[in-house]
Amino acid sequence: MPTSQHQKTNPNRQVRLKSRPTGIPQAEHFEIVEAPVAEPAEGQVVVRNLYLSVEPAMRGWVNSVGNYSEPVPVGAVMRSFTVGRVVASRSAAYKVGDVVAGMLGWQDYAVVDASAIERRVDEANGLPISTALGVLGINGLTAYFALLEVGQPKAGETVLVSTAAGSVGSCVGQIAKIQGCRTVGIAGGPVKTAQCVDEFGFDAAIDYRANEGEQLDAAIAAACPQGIDVYFDNTAGAISDAVLKHLAVGARVVVCGTASVASWNPPPQGPRVERHLLVKRARMQGFLIFDYADRYPEGMNALTGWLKDGLIRYREDVLDGMEAAPDAIAGLYRGENLGKRLIRLAAE
Amino acid sequence: MPTSQHQKTNPNRQVRLKSRPTGIPQAEHFEIVEAPVAEPAEGQVVVRNLYLSVEPAMRGWVNSVGNYSEPVPVGAVMRSFTVGRVVASRSAAYKVGDVVAGMLGWQDYAVVDASAIERRVDEANGLPISTALGVLGINGLTAYFALLEVGQPKAGETVLVSTAAGSVGSCVGQIAKIQGCRTVGIAGGPVKTAQCVDEFGFDAAIDYRANEGEQLDAAIAAACPQGIDVYFDNTAGAISDAVLKHLAVGARVVVCGTASVASWNPPPQGPRVERHLLVKRARMQGFLIFDYADRYPEGMNALTGWLKDGLIRYREDVLDGMEAAPDAIAGLYRGENLGKRLIRLAAE
Repeated sequence: MPTSQHQKTNPNRQVRLKSRPTGIPQAEHFEIVEAPVAEPAEGQVVVRNLYLSVEPAMRGWVNSVGNYSEPVPVGAVMRSFTVGRVVASRSAAYKVGDVVAGMLGWQDYAVVDASAIERRVDEANGLPISTALGVLGINGLTAYFALLEVGQPKAGETVLVSTAAGSVGSCVGQIAKIQGCRTVGIAGGPVKTAQCVDEFGFDAAIDYRANEGEQLDAAIAAACPQGIDVYFDNTAGAISDAVLKHLAVGARVVVCGTASVASWNPPPQGPRVERHLLVKRARMQGFLIFDYADRYPEGMNALTGWLKDGLIRYREDVLDGMEAAPDAIAGLYRGENLGKRLIRLAAE
Repeated sequence: MPTSQHQKTNPNRQVRLKSRPTGIPQAEHFEIVEAPVAEPAEGQVVVRNLYLSVEPAMRGWVNSVGNYSEPVPVGAVMRSFTVGRVVASRSAAYKVGDVVAGMLGWQDYAVVDASAIERRVDEANGLPISTALGVLGINGLTAYFALLEVGQPKAGETVLVSTAAGSVGSCVGQIAKIQGCRTVGIAGGPVKTAQCVDEFGFDAAIDYRANEGEQLDAAIAAACPQGIDVYFDNTAGAISDAVLKHLAVGARVVVCGTASVASWNPPPQGPRVERHLLVKRARMQGFLIFDYADRYPEGMNALTGWLKDGLIRYREDVLDGMEAAPDAIAGLYRGENLGKRLIRLAAE
């Protein structure tokens, strides 16, 4: 199969890891380089990435501290979920024009074995293909499995979510609402707090920036008069310290992310949690979406149905062009995004 | 029914809470007073306590910080499990001579409604009645339900236990062994460490006093080459900080006690745990034996069977006389006991 027109006319811009950060990766830890697009071998496809994903978890992927996967090597293309269109194919599994999603990296073109593609994206469901990276991708699936399998909310219970306006948190709140729970969100600043209630249907929302220390404590107590049955934790840190004081007997804490902790090397100090867990017979449990890979179709079906029925809303924060990528993770940790952060490389 | 001979000839010595401690209760927080034995009303029994129990959990029972039960009031008889003999009865449920166990307090005689007695102790099973306070009481039941229900050990897994020579820890190790697990104990000093291996059959034991900081870390790594699948935590604190670094994927941490923490008011600082839980998809869960009250018979049956079959051994640390009681809890926290601590008041 001949090299496609895309490859001839467009060089492949790649965002590579330039040096290894400790803590939150900043723009200076990346560099944009141009490379030729390789010729696909038999069984390979060439994908023109249209959207790149930006995740809080990327901090863990580039740090050398023990994690659930090997760190991205210095000099390599930054690991990322992407959605794109097949522009050349030497595989029977995909044809030119297919929209696909997978871990194809922060680059214009990915030349990969067909088996490296995670799935074909359904363009006929009426939803933008960018949702494949958010509410119909890793974020929605995380919300679905972490809340339902680890959090196990029951109707009438109180579910509190940190980073509640974010791509995972907003979805968690809405799924908890579908389960018949009272939902309380914690977010930073008045805009996100209002978004929690007005867009994502939380029963109450707390601005952690306007409520520090004992004020945060009091705000949580007021919003959760029966205590917290499920705490969906995306932050750890001072927010969790306050939340854990208000657990109900038998509470479940879903440890999904640790956005408020700048570095885990070494782990920062905080108040010990054992007494909360013991007195309330509560549990804290870590969650990793990749453990549920064989159940993604179930999650996708449920999420697609809820989206079509208008029971789940989502918000995207779209940056334009590869130049936006190097600073994009740091921006998440600065809290500047409203919704799922994406980088758009080209029109669909 | 007439007042019994016991009541006429013996005054009732009681250990009362004199002042409320913050942290570990010391001898000075208690006083021994003599009081008359009340006449039993209709439906009541008089029990001559033979053994009083001494538990690490008593610290929580006398502190005012949020706990699972109301604190013992200042001036009241110290709350305690006891085993004793019925010496007068105005209830059809118990007759004079019955051996009974219940929460009858640190005193010679308890005059209580028959419903306040927890159970009749089987004298025919060939085991000393003192076991009703230890391996066939709250300690054995805690080991049984906390390990099996929260820890959920599977054959071939590694189970690590802190305070492994204690009444709960030693039983946990032996039940884990019965389940086919590799068992590793952590205890303080060479005597207890040897006891773990020689008496209680742990595959390995670590002396936390002889191994501080990185040495403890290395000792745990050496004893648990496949990582730790179940951590049965009776201590929290520095021991847990070291243990959590060695969790295996999917590990369960049973939060059963917090013996190493002097005071929870306020909670002491320690390294945050979320990253361990997230990376290893592990869980920490608090346990309280009283939640399993309706399943005690099941636990008692299993423990009695294992004791008779020689699969579980136990050790008692018996102090003589009421005078030993006020300092007995502090002594536990000084680590001076070898086995289940009891106070013997009278011959059986």
